[in-house]
Amino acid sequence: MTTFDSLWESILDVGRDPLSGGYRRFAWTTTDLTLREWFTGEAQRRGMTVEEDRNGNVWAWWMPAGWVGDPRGAFVTGSHLDSVPDGGAYDGPLGIVSAFAAIDLLVARDLSPKIPVAVVAFVDEEGARFGVACIGSQLSTGALTAERALNLRDGDGTTLAEALLAAGRDPAHLGPDERLIERVGVYVELHVEQGRALDLVDKPIAVASSIWPHGRWQFTFGGEANHAGTTRLVDRRDPMLTFASAVHAARAQAVSHRAVATFGKVRVTPNGSNAVPSQVQAWLDARAADEATLSAMVAAVTADATGQAAADRTDLAVEVESVSPAVLFPDPPRQRMLHALATLGDVPVLPTQAGHDAGILSTTVPTAMLFVRNPTGISHSPDEYAEIGDCRRGAEALADVMAEWVTG
Amino acid sequence: MTTFDSLWESILDVGRDPLSGGYRRFAWTTTDLTLREWFTGEAQRRGMTVEEDRNGNVWAWWMPAGWVGDPRGAFVTGSHLDSVPDGGAYDGPLGIVSAFAAIDLLVARDLSPKIPVAVVAFVDEEGARFGVACIGSQLSTGALTAERALNLRDGDGTTLAEALLAAGRDPAHLGPDERLIERVGVYVELHVEQGRALDLVDKPIAVASSIWPHGRWQFTFGGEANHAGTTRLVDRRDPMLTFASAVHAARAQAVSHRAVATFGKVRVTPNGSNAVPSQVQAWLDARAADEATLSAMVAAVTADATGQAAADRTDLAVEVESVSPAVLFPDPPRQRMLHALATLGDVPVLPTQAGHDAGILSTTVPTAMLFVRNPTGISHSPDEYAEIGDCRRGAEALADVMAEWVTG
Repeated sequence: MTTFDSLWESILDVGRDPLSGGYRRFAWTTTDLTLREWFTGEAQRRGMTVEEDRNGNVWAWWMPAGWVGDPRGAFVTGSHLDSVPDGGAYDGPLGIVSAFAAIDLLVARDLSPKIPVAVVAFVDEEGARFGVACIGSQLSTGALTAERALNLRDGDGTTLAEALLAAGRDPAHLGPDERLIERVGVYVELHVEQGRALDLVDKPIAVASSIWPHGRWQFTFGGEANHAGTTRLVDRRDPMLTFASAVHAARAQAVSHRAVATFGKVRVTPNGSNAVPSQVQAWLDARAADEATLSAMVAAVTADATGQAAADRTDLAVEVESVSPAVLFPDPPRQRMLHALATLGDVPVLPTQAGHDAGILSTTVPTAMLFVRNPTGISHSPDEYAEIGDCRRGAEALADVMAEWVTG
Repeated sequence: MTTFDSLWESILDVGRDPLSGGYRRFAWTTTDLTLREWFTGEAQRRGMTVEEDRNGNVWAWWMPAGWVGDPRGAFVTGSHLDSVPDGGAYDGPLGIVSAFAAIDLLVARDLSPKIPVAVVAFVDEEGARFGVACIGSQLSTGALTAERALNLRDGDGTTLAEALLAAGRDPAHLGPDERLIERVGVYVELHVEQGRALDLVDKPIAVASSIWPHGRWQFTFGGEANHAGTTRLVDRRDPMLTFASAVHAARAQAVSHRAVATFGKVRVTPNGSNAVPSQVQAWLDARAADEATLSAMVAAVTADATGQAAADRTDLAVEVESVSPAVLFPDPPRQRMLHALATLGDVPVLPTQAGHDAGILSTTVPTAMLFVRNPTGISHSPDEYAEIGDCRRGAEALADVMAEWVTG
């Protein structure tokens, strides 16, 4: 299937670190703008109309012949183009490439849509730049206010408002997208699996059942900067010690709650090798099977770390950055999707621990997800990988689902 | 004593962070070049001849009337102008301001030197930019090779060679300063105390007895980058856990060795809040009363962390970045200094846990140090502080010592 392969290869070099092989595709950077241009070019090549909504999400429309007026009740598919720092090639772009490839498959099968079809690229899904995930879809559903979004800062202190201005966008446009409910009949997101569930049952494609509730908390450990040589141990207030205890507390609480909790991002001030730090900021990513367990686990980590801070004569402030409630994908679109995929035999129905724009949109419109096998389960890493044959099968499955909706 | 106060105030704004009040005066940056211009201006105002040696250390010479030929057997005093990240105002600059102020005091007392006098500013003492402390003095004594120095990289990946070129210097010049032995009769460095020893005995000035052996080790904890949501705990190889254990091991070993050990600088890859890190690099600063204890302590921290790495399925590489052996300041210059300071009464003689250019030079020329009281003991922090009266007393003490050497 040349159309999938050549589409896939056409963005493999964009934003790739030559040393690690990983990707740094952060929202509103030059790399992101290059990917948006690619998206627009691919849409235009297919005769699709491209529009950027008020929040920077890009939509490419394939309208039924003779359709009059605005799109309504569309079959929408897509994903995101941005990455985590040093991320993999598949997380996000696979869904967008597969969406264009699925359209090509329908055209090759001589099928044309009876209802509007859209490919969408949601902006800043990973939250790698401004610390909040799914910014584009959260703004559109109203889960994130424009005011909060515009004041988010990246690691260099640049606000989202400034980043938008630098990219030639008007920050005043941000806000809820009132047209979503009317326009989107269903949103189907295809995504590389981020665990090994499909590999363990030897299947190429799955359908999503639910998303675990998950969130991100900022832990700020405060102490007193001092000379690492001349300050007696008893005189120190070293926040690195308290942070280290919190790392262990997070792991222990994750084990006992049968959940996951991770400190993967750290910022040390002043970060001098011969200075006791004045402050350690660290971000806790936590996810659990249900919301009560998630809250209990984060409360336990916070309590453990607060107790340790008292012992270390440091202080601790914990701030929630984002919490996404559990998502149960609705039954009707899932059943219709499984029906469209009947030729694949027994398609697994799986929960996922990863957040997605489909989870955000599910508060507002019907949503569903397809997963493509990840043989190692590795994700958010340059080593993230899927077989090209499985990726082609994913695009074909998406085409089958699209055909079911738009030509049925 | 207006001369000290106005000199001191003239650099207080250079490189100061308006938010924290701390200093970021890193080698070969614009801030550093501004301070070098200030140094040259102060020297020229006093009729001193300024030269920059092959390694970027700046010397200002006050020659005896009628002296012919190169300086020999000089009384040299000074310190450094650079800072740690978010450092204090005193660590370094106090020694240079006091040196110029001492010269002014000799002139005011109508004294003129019978032997050459120099004020020196050694480059990059803190090692904040390139990770190795005392680069200028180490290059000049041959303790650091030009090849190793030129390939050191700062946090942005810039090598020292590139930084030198950008500052208009020729990297090919770096190497041992063969003239040191002949030129420097004694090097006396005045420095703010970095502990509370003087405060505890209520004295403004001390003389140094020794410097603890100390060093810096780079710990690289390697694991596997992965998705923080979807990767099962049992499948993770998370180097943050091993690092956290090493932080606690360092503190425990420091306690049991009656020494100090600090992880104050950390670099996480990829440092994404929803990614298990692939790597955590951390720098251990360790200091002890003698070299055997220092080695034993670092070996114990390494062994603890290596054992933990095996349990965490991560790996650990430990690389020594620098080790400074113990320095025992020689007895004759100390005795002569104490004699010059007899009017101060009982002057304490103290060891220090902090490294200094005087320690590096002590392998090559006679050296001695004066400390000025630090009432809180805080150093390497915006809160570093000394009373202005104590600082003036320090400059007067240095003038007394200078007079003893150069007019005696």
